[in-house]
Amino acid sequence: MKKQLSIIKIGGNVINSKQQLDAFLDDFTALDTLKILVHGGGKKATEIADSMGLSPKMIGGRRVTDQANLEVVTMVYAGLLNKNIVAQLQARGCNALGLSGADANVIKAHKRIVKDIDYGFAGDIDEVENKTISLFLHAGITPVFSAITHDNHGQLLNTNADTIAAELAKGLSKDFEVELIYCFEKKGVLKSVDDEESVIEHLNSKSYEGLKNQGIISEGMLPKLENCFSSLRSGVERVIIGKPEVINHRNGKHTTLTL
Amino acid sequence: MKKQLSIIKIGGNVINSKQQLDAFLDDFTALDTLKILVHGGGKKATEIADSMGLSPKMIGGRRVTDQANLEVVTMVYAGLLNKNIVAQLQARGCNALGLSGADANVIKAHKRIVKDIDYGFAGDIDEVENKTISLFLHAGITPVFSAITHDNHGQLLNTNADTIAAELAKGLSKDFEVELIYCFEKKGVLKSVDDEESVIEHLNSKSYEGLKNQGIISEGMLPKLENCFSSLRSGVERVIIGKPEVINHRNGKHTTLTL
Repeated sequence: MKKQLSIIKIGGNVINSKQQLDAFLDDFTALDTLKILVHGGGKKATEIADSMGLSPKMIGGRRVTDQANLEVVTMVYAGLLNKNIVAQLQARGCNALGLSGADANVIKAHKRIVKDIDYGFAGDIDEVENKTISLFLHAGITPVFSAITHDNHGQLLNTNADTIAAELAKGLSKDFEVELIYCFEKKGVLKSVDDEESVIEHLNSKSYEGLKNQGIISEGMLPKLENCFSSLRSGVERVIIGKPEVINHRNGKHTTLTL
Repeated sequence: MKKQLSIIKIGGNVINSKQQLDAFLDDFTALDTLKILVHGGGKKATEIADSMGLSPKMIGGRRVTDQANLEVVTMVYAGLLNKNIVAQLQARGCNALGLSGADANVIKAHKRIVKDIDYGFAGDIDEVENKTISLFLHAGITPVFSAITHDNHGQLLNTNADTIAAELAKGLSKDFEVELIYCFEKKGVLKSVDDEESVIEHLNSKSYEGLKNQGIISEGMLPKLENCFSSLRSGVERVIIGKPEVINHRNGKHTTLTL
């Protein structure tokens, strides 16, 4: 029987607040399955870029990663944030190992192909090295991923943390029974954006199509949910979307996605 | 019989020059023993600190690591430099894994005790987790260490890269036949600082004491050499000091230290 593996993604909202991050890391450490943490960037990269006099380059509301900004995200995500999270987890007795995709070649990607927009050094993932990640997990090590990958030709790439979590979940489904948990600032997928209590507690591909066609699910959630269903179709057992505390307190409201 | 392990330290002079770094990484990849790379910081941390408007804090010619400077070295050493070196090694087919001391708890240190000078967040090493590092090596992984450690209570610490290399060499001597190689800008330990060709080709603890007492070995080399002999007394087979190309071209002049 496959062992259970929880892959948990936290975003900027958790990282930006010391109090929220501490509470999350307590909960994460207490989780008694095999586990992987994937973290986004938060506002620190913008603060550092600002203090260096760099302005973020945006096209159509999306951040474009030029060389200078790639250096900043590599420093902040893979250095400052990743090593601080690892040190905080070690202090709690969780044997964390910080990783970028380049480390032990665990995530290979390519620079996003230019179509309408040149996103610069943005990475689209090709392959997850599940054998090496499994080796770490079986050795009692908890991988902690920053949102930086590489192209295996020496180029680092800024990569969406949601996508990293989804691709890890797919790749590791060969070896583990994988649960993918997206932590964000809401209790789950909402029927009505303004009503925090209007959580859709269960979504499957059929009910999702229905709600999408009725325009009930908000635009911003669609790429995240497409990622989720793509993971489920590739063998991931279930996807959970909710506040950070959902990772080991399942009594509160949250959204569970299955095929 | 123990397997041979080469632990190689490069400093700022190699990191600051793309050409030198490329040549070194070619040589490092070609080395056919088990191997570990330890890298210093170079001028990038100072450049980033400058661009952020931070001034390095110096007391008695030594850098003092305050909170702001700790953030910079964590970003630059464990993020920017470490991940770029790892990506460059992966591109050459060397399965590099970037590590700080916090990652998988491989190097535990403590904040330097304040005597005359408060060095701030500077780390003195307590313990190397040789079991985990051996696991990586036996899995075909090449550890690449940045000069950041932790105190196992959540605090990251700026740590001398020469000392990290020496402590790794000592710790891993239990499991491997360790050769420790310090690469720097000279061909070796010089009899006369101004004469690049005056390399002392062999040093043992007896000849070292003699040359030290005669004042032939320059002040600046003494702490490095003390580290070397301390490693040799703890089971390291030999220490090599020379230019980066010494790592697999031993025909040129360099210094070999034995007990």
